[in-house]
Amino acid sequence: MNSPDETIVALATAQGVSAIAVIRLSGKDSIELAQKIFKGKDLTTQATHTIHFGTIHDGDRNIDEVLVSLFKAPNSFTKENSVEISCHGSPVIVKEIIKVLLKHGARLATPGEFTKRAFLNGRFDLAQAEAVADIIVAETDNARQAAFNQMRGGFSKEIQHLREELIHFASLIELELDFGEEDVEFAKRDDLKKLIHQIQTYLRSLIHSFDLGNVIKNGVPTVIAGKPNAGKSTLLNTLLNEEKAIVSEIPGTTRDVIEDEMLLGGISFRFMDTAGLRETTDIVEAIGVARTYENLRKASLILYLFDLSQSSLDEMYKEEEAIKKLNVPYIKVGNKIDRADAATIKQLEADGFVLISASQKTNIQHLKDKILSHFHIGEVKQGDVLVTNLRHYQSLKQTNDALDRVLGGMDSGITGDFLAMDIRQSLHYLGEITGQVTTDDLLDNIFSKFCIGK
Amino acid sequence: MNSPDETIVALATAQGVSAIAVIRLSGKDSIELAQKIFKGKDLTTQATHTIHFGTIHDGDRNIDEVLVSLFKAPNSFTKENSVEISCHGSPVIVKEIIKVLLKHGARLATPGEFTKRAFLNGRFDLAQAEAVADIIVAETDNARQAAFNQMRGGFSKEIQHLREELIHFASLIELELDFGEEDVEFAKRDDLKKLIHQIQTYLRSLIHSFDLGNVIKNGVPTVIAGKPNAGKSTLLNTLLNEEKAIVSEIPGTTRDVIEDEMLLGGISFRFMDTAGLRETTDIVEAIGVARTYENLRKASLILYLFDLSQSSLDEMYKEEEAIKKLNVPYIKVGNKIDRADAATIKQLEADGFVLISASQKTNIQHLKDKILSHFHIGEVKQGDVLVTNLRHYQSLKQTNDALDRVLGGMDSGITGDFLAMDIRQSLHYLGEITGQVTTDDLLDNIFSKFCIGK
Repeated sequence: MNSPDETIVALATAQGVSAIAVIRLSGKDSIELAQKIFKGKDLTTQATHTIHFGTIHDGDRNIDEVLVSLFKAPNSFTKENSVEISCHGSPVIVKEIIKVLLKHGARLATPGEFTKRAFLNGRFDLAQAEAVADIIVAETDNARQAAFNQMRGGFSKEIQHLREELIHFASLIELELDFGEEDVEFAKRDDLKKLIHQIQTYLRSLIHSFDLGNVIKNGVPTVIAGKPNAGKSTLLNTLLNEEKAIVSEIPGTTRDVIEDEMLLGGISFRFMDTAGLRETTDIVEAIGVARTYENLRKASLILYLFDLSQSSLDEMYKEEEAIKKLNVPYIKVGNKIDRADAATIKQLEADGFVLISASQKTNIQHLKDKILSHFHIGEVKQGDVLVTNLRHYQSLKQTNDALDRVLGGMDSGITGDFLAMDIRQSLHYLGEITGQVTTDDLLDNIFSKFCIGK
Repeated sequence: MNSPDETIVALATAQGVSAIAVIRLSGKDSIELAQKIFKGKDLTTQATHTIHFGTIHDGDRNIDEVLVSLFKAPNSFTKENSVEISCHGSPVIVKEIIKVLLKHGARLATPGEFTKRAFLNGRFDLAQAEAVADIIVAETDNARQAAFNQMRGGFSKEIQHLREELIHFASLIELELDFGEEDVEFAKRDDLKKLIHQIQTYLRSLIHSFDLGNVIKNGVPTVIAGKPNAGKSTLLNTLLNEEKAIVSEIPGTTRDVIEDEMLLGGISFRFMDTAGLRETTDIVEAIGVARTYENLRKASLILYLFDLSQSSLDEMYKEEEAIKKLNVPYIKVGNKIDRADAATIKQLEADGFVLISASQKTNIQHLKDKILSHFHIGEVKQGDVLVTNLRHYQSLKQTNDALDRVLGGMDSGITGDFLAMDIRQSLHYLGEITGQVTTDDLLDNIFSKFCIGK
């Protein structure tokens, strides 16, 4: 429906009162359109990547003094002619300027439409386009770096390369079909197997990276569990308060405070309020209760708190047996270390317990180190390729499964036409990741989640 | 304390997740500083008003792909070298970029520091600098236009011109003093009087414009009053609901919804919750109660509601007598028109009552027109000079008073030295408006109210 000839317009900066706001225009006529409402130099004769001071007017009404930046196709984000109007950061001014642009023929951009145009015009592939959205919402520096790497290319090139090789084989096999009864074999089956193994090795490393990528992008749902009075709330407060004390020192960059979230080593740990769990008076007794069990299963990490002042060693080992059955990574934390005797402490340390005092804040850093060690992560570095996007992860798995079928088919000696079909299926899933295979629905679904102006 | 040689940095756009964010740098070394963290072209050799694509890095860590805009002194807002970094609109990225800039020697800008530098470097006078802050927070298009006109010069030039003529007289009079006993008169007293009359005529028109300017900038505190069950709440809801139904159609430009505010003809009417008033069961009886009286006195407009279904004509006229004494502009509104007879309606209309039905929404537009007619305002136009700033208003009044003293002094034949002192006093107040006379305290007070990044 939307013609690329249309000039689209949107506010590109965050809304609110501020020093400046930037309104973005894109489309082949965008510079001519801007000229119609601009008093100053003739924008249509200026070079790309230049900035011009002037006044935006609506007939004889001056709206604001602005700076206009020009970007000429193909040297713009969208690869179309583009204009950025930098005005005073007032919602009233932004509205008036957009209104006069609409009056002269622009239309409001839909969410993600600038990036969609950039994708459709070949600036980057779909996975890179999605990284543009991810980098904006990244809540930690690691998430930012992972998105940045993906935006810069990440796995795109390698996947495109492997896909091309697979297409080559698919073509050869389809060529064989044309020869029908002649029993020719243009596509050497051994070479095909080798290629598929190569592709699968790469796919599996990407699939595997999603464990970490997902943690970096979405954080770790964490539960603090333990018997009543083991000190669960005290520990939660101790962990969160340290976090809250770190106030962002640079104005305008404070993250919205998220209840019950702790940033640790570039990962966010979201403490889940497992209501069902909290209501249960004894986690061990209640382990059979379906709801509590479900709550714990949703966690990616359990901090299980033992009360050193109440439980004997035997009791604690019995508790641990129950936790093990949950099949969720857990850390054994012995609380109230100040009330345990030396022998118990020695024994528990030997058994891998982290011994703390939540109320006296003893050994909290050690606990944090232990939490982090569950996620084999340092800083995400330049060029590290991590899959962070659930859509990519699913397509990668689907590709891998389809390739398994190709291999299985070859082993069981299926005919070329079925083989070709399975390969085409793999190519389809692989192409969905980078956007070489798309549907309007897929694109709409992806870009509608973008913010307006992006 | 702050050296203009320092490079200052701040986020210039609103905070929050968005397509792009703009970080602003100013100071003589700002371009060299940006170059230190930029991979791309050599920024230091590029022309002013050009835009360059590249990557912001912190050592071997790439932070984001950005566009860097260069402004070379004196062709920038601050008249210093300036750089704008347009990055992805993520608080994490903004923070990382500002951090690396700080690491290389920039410092965080204080509120309004960019505009303060622009003022100190002679870009505009103080009244114009203040208009920059006003235009950002303007909540209506009229307020925006009034601020725009002031930013464009407004009364600045005229005041500066009149001040210079007055300075000329002051110098002549001071010269007379040097001649001591000789009884010379360099400054012709008649010409001085003429000038002062001319200045006062201008000042008075400005002082007078503050009534409207203040209304445009700050809105009209409005009270709906009347006897219990006259329909006050119903009318308030009717007026407000129509307003709330008008949802801003352009994303990113929605004003924060302000409780109990109605925009009418470019003016905001803020309905005051006069708690004292609402508690009073009978406004007329309670008129003597100090607190209610005070609440009503704070209003700039009273919509006084008469209950046509309950009160007789005589009672209504008696009520009006009480309202008159408040000495606040009021509109007589007869509510429940559907329950009044034709004769009463005819009589009340003749007496200037606005007759409505708040519940049935009858004649509401007529009431709105009547409300607006109390403020003789159409659109604020290009070049209209309005005083909207309380500080300017006060300085104008002080100037005018000091000039009265000069005239009075001349009439009573005071000596030249006293005359010179009064003229100097006028010059001082006049100079404060445009910033030709400033103190650090005055500047700090003005600019500290700006937002950061402006």
